[in-house]
Amino acid sequence: MRTAPLLRDCGLDPEQVAALLRATLAEDLGEAGDITSAATVPAEARLRVAYVARVPGVVCGLPLVAALAEPVGDLTTEVSDGARVEAGQRLAVLEGRAREVLALERTSLNLLTHLSGIATATRAWADAVAGTRARVRDTRKTTPLLRSLEKYAVRCGGGVNHRTGLYDAILVKDNHVAAAGGVGRALDAAYAAHPRGSLVVQVEVDTRAQLDEALAHGAEQVLLDNFTLAQLRAAVERVRSTHPEVLVEASGGLTLADAAEVAATGVDFLAVGALTHSAPALDIGLDVLA
Amino acid sequence: MRTAPLLRDCGLDPEQVAALLRATLAEDLGEAGDITSAATVPAEARLRVAYVARVPGVVCGLPLVAALAEPVGDLTTEVSDGARVEAGQRLAVLEGRAREVLALERTSLNLLTHLSGIATATRAWADAVAGTRARVRDTRKTTPLLRSLEKYAVRCGGGVNHRTGLYDAILVKDNHVAAAGGVGRALDAAYAAHPRGSLVVQVEVDTRAQLDEALAHGAEQVLLDNFTLAQLRAAVERVRSTHPEVLVEASGGLTLADAAEVAATGVDFLAVGALTHSAPALDIGLDVLA
Amino acid sequence: MRTAPLLRDCGLDPEQVAALLRATLAEDLGEAGDITSAATVPAEARLRVAYVARVPGVVCGLPLVAALAEPVGDLTTEVSDGARVEAGQRLAVLEGRAREVLALERTSLNLLTHLSGIATATRAWADAVAGTRARVRDTRKTTPLLRSLEKYAVRCGGGVNHRTGLYDAILVKDNHVAAAGGVGRALDAAYAAHPRGSLVVQVEVDTRAQLDEALAHGAEQVLLDNFTLAQLRAAVERVRSTHPEVLVEASGGLTLADAAEVAATGVDFLAVGALTHSAPALDIGLDVLA
Amino acid sequence: MRTAPLLRDCGLDPEQVAALLRATLAEDLGEAGDITSAATVPAEARLRVAYVARVPGVVCGLPLVAALAEPVGDLTTEVSDGARVEAGQRLAVLEGRAREVLALERTSLNLLTHLSGIATATRAWADAVAGTRARVRDTRKTTPLLRSLEKYAVRCGGGVNHRTGLYDAILVKDNHVAAAGGVGRALDAAYAAHPRGSLVVQVEVDTRAQLDEALAHGAEQVLLDNFTLAQLRAAVERVRSTHPEVLVEASGGLTLADAAEVAATGVDFLAVGALTHSAPALDIGLDVLA
Amino acid sequence: MRTAPLLRDCGLDPEQVAALLRATLAEDLGEAGDITSAATVPAEARLRVAYVARVPGVVCGLPLVAALAEPVGDLTTEVSDGARVEAGQRLAVLEGRAREVLALERTSLNLLTHLSGIATATRAWADAVAGTRARVRDTRKTTPLLRSLEKYAVRCGGGVNHRTGLYDAILVKDNHVAAAGGVGRALDAAYAAHPRGSLVVQVEVDTRAQLDEALAHGAEQVLLDNFTLAQLRAAVERVRSTHPEVLVEASGGLTLADAAEVAATGVDFLAVGALTHSAPALDIGLDVLA
Amino acid sequence: MRTAPLLRDCGLDPEQVAALLRATLAEDLGEAGDITSAATVPAEARLRVAYVARVPGVVCGLPLVAALAEPVGDLTTEVSDGARVEAGQRLAVLEGRAREVLALERTSLNLLTHLSGIATATRAWADAVAGTRARVRDTRKTTPLLRSLEKYAVRCGGGVNHRTGLYDAILVKDNHVAAAGGVGRALDAAYAAHPRGSLVVQVEVDTRAQLDEALAHGAEQVLLDNFTLAQLRAAVERVRSTHPEVLVEASGGLTLADAAEVAATGVDFLAVGALTHSAPALDIGLDVLA
Repeated sequence: MRTAPLLRDCGLDPEQVAALLRATLAEDLGEAGDITSAATVPAEARLRVAYVARVPGVVCGLPLVAALAEPVGDLTTEVSDGARVEAGQRLAVLEGRAREVLALERTSLNLLTHLSGIATATRAWADAVAGTRARVRDTRKTTPLLRSLEKYAVRCGGGVNHRTGLYDAILVKDNHVAAAGGVGRALDAAYAAHPRGSLVVQVEVDTRAQLDEALAHGAEQVLLDNFTLAQLRAAVERVRSTHPEVLVEASGGLTLADAAEVAATGVDFLAVGALTHSAPALDIGLDVLA
Repeated sequence: MRTAPLLRDCGLDPEQVAALLRATLAEDLGEAGDITSAATVPAEARLRVAYVARVPGVVCGLPLVAALAEPVGDLTTEVSDGARVEAGQRLAVLEGRAREVLALERTSLNLLTHLSGIATATRAWADAVAGTRARVRDTRKTTPLLRSLEKYAVRCGGGVNHRTGLYDAILVKDNHVAAAGGVGRALDAAYAAHPRGSLVVQVEVDTRAQLDEALAHGAEQVLLDNFTLAQLRAAVERVRSTHPEVLVEASGGLTLADAAEVAATGVDFLAVGALTHSAPALDIGLDVLA
Repeated sequence: MRTAPLLRDCGLDPEQVAALLRATLAEDLGEAGDITSAATVPAEARLRVAYVARVPGVVCGLPLVAALAEPVGDLTTEVSDGARVEAGQRLAVLEGRAREVLALERTSLNLLTHLSGIATATRAWADAVAGTRARVRDTRKTTPLLRSLEKYAVRCGGGVNHRTGLYDAILVKDNHVAAAGGVGRALDAAYAAHPRGSLVVQVEVDTRAQLDEALAHGAEQVLLDNFTLAQLRAAVERVRSTHPEVLVEASGGLTLADAAEVAATGVDFLAVGALTHSAPALDIGLDVLA
Repeated sequence: MRTAPLLRDCGLDPEQVAALLRATLAEDLGEAGDITSAATVPAEARLRVAYVARVPGVVCGLPLVAALAEPVGDLTTEVSDGARVEAGQRLAVLEGRAREVLALERTSLNLLTHLSGIATATRAWADAVAGTRARVRDTRKTTPLLRSLEKYAVRCGGGVNHRTGLYDAILVKDNHVAAAGGVGRALDAAYAAHPRGSLVVQVEVDTRAQLDEALAHGAEQVLLDNFTLAQLRAAVERVRSTHPEVLVEASGGLTLADAAEVAATGVDFLAVGALTHSAPALDIGLDVLA
Repeated sequence: MRTAPLLRDCGLDPEQVAALLRATLAEDLGEAGDITSAATVPAEARLRVAYVARVPGVVCGLPLVAALAEPVGDLTTEVSDGARVEAGQRLAVLEGRAREVLALERTSLNLLTHLSGIATATRAWADAVAGTRARVRDTRKTTPLLRSLEKYAVRCGGGVNHRTGLYDAILVKDNHVAAAGGVGRALDAAYAAHPRGSLVVQVEVDTRAQLDEALAHGAEQVLLDNFTLAQLRAAVERVRSTHPEVLVEASGGLTLADAAEVAATGVDFLAVGALTHSAPALDIGLDVLA
Repeated sequence: MRTAPLLRDCGLDPEQVAALLRATLAEDLGEAGDITSAATVPAEARLRVAYVARVPGVVCGLPLVAALAEPVGDLTTEVSDGARVEAGQRLAVLEGRAREVLALERTSLNLLTHLSGIATATRAWADAVAGTRARVRDTRKTTPLLRSLEKYAVRCGGGVNHRTGLYDAILVKDNHVAAAGGVGRALDAAYAAHPRGSLVVQVEVDTRAQLDEALAHGAEQVLLDNFTLAQLRAAVERVRSTHPEVLVEASGGLTLADAAEVAATGVDFLAVGALTHSAPALDIGLDVLA
C-alpha cells in the first residue's frame, strides 16, 4: 500500500486501516458491486471528481480516502487533515475509471464526513479553552469499531487522547474504589500490580476527602468528577500547593458553553465524551469536474 | 450463541454480529484486558447492574448487549428494542463476576447509546409524518462498519430501509444519467442488464421533464431530488394520474421541521440521511444495584 | 490485483475471488508446495503452455485463471468467457517460470473445466428454448462454496440467475404456505414484512386454485411446480388474461429433451437445477508449447 | 462442536469442516437470512423433516449435515455414510424450530447430494473391479475448495485416495521428465531432494522403455498412462517378474465400461478423475413429517 | 471457553490464546489428524495421563494446557504456574478419549516445556538479585509470535515486564539520539509528541554526560547501557542525589554470574534478553496412569 | 510479494510466511507503531544498516528478513542461508526510510537469531556425525507456531526432517503398541488403514523382541528408543542381515558428546529434539552504516 507511510505518520496502523477500508467498502459493494454503474456507465469512461466542503469545519480523513482510492487513482489533496476549511472549499481531487470512482463515492464520504465532524467538534472545544493550560481530552465513549480513527480525529481537532482502552493505563473509578474499600486501598492495589513507572495511573475522586486520600497514596493523575466550578478551583489549588506534579482532569456533564470557565479553574484536562459519541457529520460532497 | 435466534429475529446475522462484538470488545480490552479491575476488584466479587436511560428516547441494541454479555451472565431485559422509554427507566439488568461485568460496561454502552440515538431520531421523524402515507426511509449515509446495525435501529425507530448497498438494487442517479446520455437511456440500460422482475429499480429525477422521461421508460420508483413542496405536489399528482403503481420518494436537505409538510405532498418516502450520520447518542448509563 | 476490474466486469467480487483462489491453490500446494517440480525442474527454467479444449463446449473461467496466474505471468486469452469453442481450440496461453506454471496447472484446470461444464450445459438449454420468450433460470442447487462462480457460469451459457440466496428475494414455497395457512395469507405476511417495491416477491403454486389465490393477493411472480404441459398452457393463458405483468416460471423435473415444449407453453422462465448440480466437467487440458 | 469426534473418525478436520459449513451457509443466508420464512413462519413453530433418497445410490455426507444442524437440533441418522440406499429410503430425521430447519434445507441438501453423487459413482467403479487386486483411486481433479470432502466421498464409495496435493507425495510426470532430461534423471533428482523413506514416490511412464528406466532407478510406484490393455498386461508382467514390490497404476481415459478389463490386467490401481469432476448429484430430498 | 476467566487472571487474552492454540494444534494435526492413533487405538478407548517434571524447575503454562484440553476433558492441576517443582513431581492429570489425549500430547508439551524453561531461567535471575531493590526485567527479544506468553512466563518466574512493544512506551535509544541530535533534543521531541503523563518515557544513555543531559531534560527512567560496575554505582548515586524519583536500569551483556553484583549497585532493573531468547526447554513428560 | 519465489525455493509457503511476518510485526508495532521513532526521527531521514554476526555460527532466516523488509527497501544479502559465518561478518545490508528501518529492527533480529541458533546447533550435530551414514533428524518438539520455519533451519544446518506432524506419516509409538496389543497388531492395523505405499510407516521399538516382531510385520522404518550403544550395534546388525531396506533411527536422550559414537553404530538417523526446543539464539546485531 503506497499510502502506508502516510498512515503511519498519522499514528494509524496501515494493516488495520486496510482491513477496515476493505470491510466498509464491502458493506456497500457486497459481491455484485455497483450494479447501477456497471449497467449504465461505459467500461472505459473516466471521471474526475472533487471532494468539497459544503459548510465550514475541520477536515479529517483524507489519508484514508487516499488509501481507499489507491487502486483507482491518485488522490490529489489540496488541504491536510486538521485544516480549517470554508464552505465550498475543495479538499481533494480524484481521477479514475468512472465506474470505480463512483463505486467508492459513498464509502469515502461516509468516512470523511464522520471524522471531519469529530475534528470540527473538537476544534470548537479546543478554541474555547485556548489561552488556558487546559487541554480537551477524549474518552472511551467512541463509536464501535472506530476508536483508533476517532482518536486520530480528536488529535486533528486539537484535542489530546486519553488511554486507548482498558488495557493501557490504570483509571481507578468509583466501582473500583467501592470494590477495593476506599481510594487509598485501590491505589495501593494498583501500584502493587503495576509498579510505579510501568504504566500511567489515574484515579477518579468525587469529594475533597477522596482527593486528599488519593494524593496521600501517590496518585499521579486525578479525575475530578462532577465538581462545581468552585470545587474545581479549590481542588486545583490544593493539588498545586503540595503536589505540583499531579495532573488534574475535570469530567462530568461538561458543555461547550461552560468550557472556558472550567478551563479557567486551572485544570489540566477537560474530559469530553461528546466529541466522539455525538458529533454530527460534517457536510462534504463530491462534485464532478468538467 | 444462545442469542443467535434472537438476533435472527431482528434481521441480523448472528455470525456477523458475533464478529463485530468480538472486534469492538477487543478495541477496549486489547490483550491485557481491564487491568484496573484486575488489580482492584477481588476475583470472586460479583456485581449486579442496571442499564438505565438518563433521558427519554427509543431504545435499540438490547439483543446485542445480551449477546455481548452471554459469557458473563444472562441479561434480563425489561423493555424491548423499539420501546419508548422515560428518563430513569430501567432497560435491563445484568449480574455476573464483577471483573467481567465492568469489562464490558463501556463497550455495551457505546453500542446501546449509539443505536438508541438513531432509533430515537428516527422515531421523531416517523411521528412527524404519522397520519400520511409517507414513511421515513434511510440512506447509505451510515457510519463505517455499522450499516446493518444502523439500518436495524432505523427499523426500531419506525423507519423503513432503502437498499442495503450498491449491490442489491438499482438506483440511477445524476452521474449515471449523465454517463448514459439521459434518464431514458439509463433506464433502458438498467433493464437490459437486469430484466424487469429481477431487482428493484429506482431513478433519481431533478426536473419534471426527467420525471416524464422516467415514467415513459418504465421507472418503478422515482427519487425527486431537491423539489420544492409545490413541485413535489405536482409531481405526485402527475405520477398518480397515469402511473399509480410507481413509488415516489422525496430527497435533498429535508429537515425534521419540514417533514410533515413534505409528507403531506403525498410522497411515499422521505429520504433522510441524518438518521444515520448525525444522530447524537442517547444518554444511557449503568447503575450498580445493591 | 491487476485483474480486479476484469472480475468486476463479470459481476464477481475481486476480494472474494482472490480469497477463493488462494484457498483452492492452498488445497493443492499445502505448505511445502509442488515438491516434485522443485526437485526435478531447474529453478530458472521457463515454460509456455496453452489451455486447449479437448471437446466442443462453452468456455467459462478465463478471468479466474488470469487472476490465478497473475503472480506467474500474463495470461493471453484467445477467446472470451461465453464463447463456443471447438475440440482442439486454444483458449489461452501462459508463459512463466516453469515451476510456477506447473504449480497452478491442476488448480486452474479444475476451475476452468468445472465452470465450462456448467456454461456448456446451460448453453444447451438456452439453445433449446431459443425462439420463445422463455429463458433458462438457475436455482440455489449449487455446489457448496461456488455459488457466485456457478451463477456467473450460467450467465456465460446464456441463462439468467434467480435470487442469490434466501436473503435477497422472497420465494414463498409449499412449506411457507402450509405454515402461514394458505397462499394468500403467506403473501400478505410477506408484503407486511417487506412493503411492495422493496424486494422481488415470488410464490410457488401447485394447483390452479393456488394460482388464482396468488394473483388475488398480488403475486408478482409465480412458480408453477410440477405442472403438466397442458396445465402450464392453461396457467399461462389465465395469467396473461388478467395479470399481464406477472412473470411465470415452470419448475419440477424438467429435462433438456422437454425444454422446447415447456418453453412453448409461454412461460417466462424454466427453473433448472441440473445446470449447477450435475453438469459434467468440460474436458480442457494444458499443452506445453515449443 | 459435539460432532467433532465424529468428523475426526471420518478423517476430516473439524475446524476446517466448521469453517466450510459456515461459509456455505453464509452463501445462502447472507446477512438478512431466510427472509421468506421469517415473514411467513411463526417464530415458535417447529418442524420435523426427513432426508429421503429419491433414487438408489450410496450416501455420503451425513456427519456434515449433523454438524450443520447442531445449533438447530439433533440429527437422527438411519443409515451411515457409505451405505447403499434404495429410492424412497429415509436417511435421517431432523426436528427443530421451523425457521431454522428451513434455513438449512438447501445447504444441507447441496452437500449431501454432491458427496453422495461421488460416492455413488465410486461404488459403481469399485463394484466393476471387485474380484481383482485392483482398487479405484482418485486424482487431484476435484471441485475447487472441496478436495478433502470429495476424497472422503471416494472412500465412502469404496475407492482409495491418491496423494492429497502436490505437497505430500512425489509424482514425476511427463513435464518433469522433460525438464530433468529423462525418467532416470528425474527420479534421481527426486530421491536426492527427498531421501528414500521420507515420502511416497511415483513416476508416470508412457512407454515400455521408460518403464524399464523407472525400475532401474528405483521407482516405487509407476503410473502407466494411456497404455492399451495388451501393453498394460505386458507391463504388469514385466514389473512383477523383477520388482514385485513396485505398485502399478493405470491411467488415461478409463471408462466404467472398460474398468473390469483394465483391472484384469493385474494393475494395482485405476486412476479415475471422473469420480470427482463429473459425478452427477444424487437426488435426495427433504420430506416434512407429520 | 470455560478457561477464559482463568486466562484473564493470568493477564492473557482468551481470544488470542484460543487462536494460538488452534494454530499450533493445526501445525501438528493438519487436516488428517493423528492418523497413527486413528489406525491403532480403538475409538472408545480412554486414557489417563500425568504431566510430570523430569528435572527441577519453575512451571508455566498449565492454564494453556487446560484450555487446549478443554474439548477432551478437565485437566486437574496439582501445582500452579510459578511453582517450583522437583524432578518427578506431577503437575497435572488429564483423562479423556485416548485418541484425543494422544493427539494433543506433543502440542501441550511443547507449550509447557518452552514456557517453563523461561520461567525457570527467570527464577534463577530473580533469586540471584533477591535482597536488593533490583528486579529482573525482560526485553523485546522474544520468540516470534509468542511475546505475550513469554512475558507471562517471565512474570511466573519472578521477573517484571518492560514495555510490550514499540507502541506502548517511549524508549529513546542511541539511533534516536543520533537522529534527533542529542539526548536532550530527543527527550524534548518525545514529550512534545506525548505530553508528560500520557506514557512511560525512558532513555538509553551510554555516558555520564548523557545521563546528566537526560536528567536535565526530565527523563523519568534511564537505561544505562554497557556501564561497568563502578560506572553503575556512580550513576546510581548521581541519580539518587538529585532525582530520587527517576528509575535506573542496567543493560548490556549481563550474565547470571554477575547479576548479584550488578544488583548491588543500586539499580532498579536488570534488562535480560536471554530470559526469552535463549532459555532451554524444561524437561517435562507425559506418563500414562494405570 | 517479490520474495515469494525465493521462499518457495526454501520449501516455505509464501502465504503462510507473509501471515507470520505480519503477525509478529504486529506484536511489536501494535496499532500505534514505533512511537519513539515517530517522535524523534525526521520523517524524511534515511538509514543504512547491516546485519552482523557477533559470534560464529550458521545463518538462517535471511529470505524472511528480505520478505519483512520488502515494503521498506531491498535487502542486499552477502551470504546465503546455511552459510557458516565468523564473528563480525556482515550478513546483509538494508537501506530505507529511517523510521521504517528502525521499526523492523527487533522483529527481524528475533527471527534471524532464533533460526540461526537452530541452524548452528544442527550444524554441530551434523559435523559430529560426518563420515558415517547417519544423519541428524529433527522431531516434533518445536516451538509453538514455528514448526515450518524451524524445520527449514534444521535443513540449513545440515539436518533432515522427520514427518511434519501427526498427519503425514505413521509413527507407531509405545502407547499405540499398548492400545493395539503389541507391535505386530499395531503395524497390521496401520497397514489396514493405510495400504502399503500410501504413506511412510515407522514403528518405535524398545526391545530386541519388539524389533523382531516389527520386522516380521513389515516395518519399513524402526525407531530404537533408549538403546545402549551395544544394543544399537546389535540391532543394526540384525536389521541389515535380513532386512537391508529397513531404515533405523536412534532416539532417547542423545547428546552432542555421544553423537559420533551413536552414529558409528551404523544407524541411519539420530533423532534430536534439542535442535528445536533448546538451541540458544545466535547473537546477531544491527549496525548503522555511515
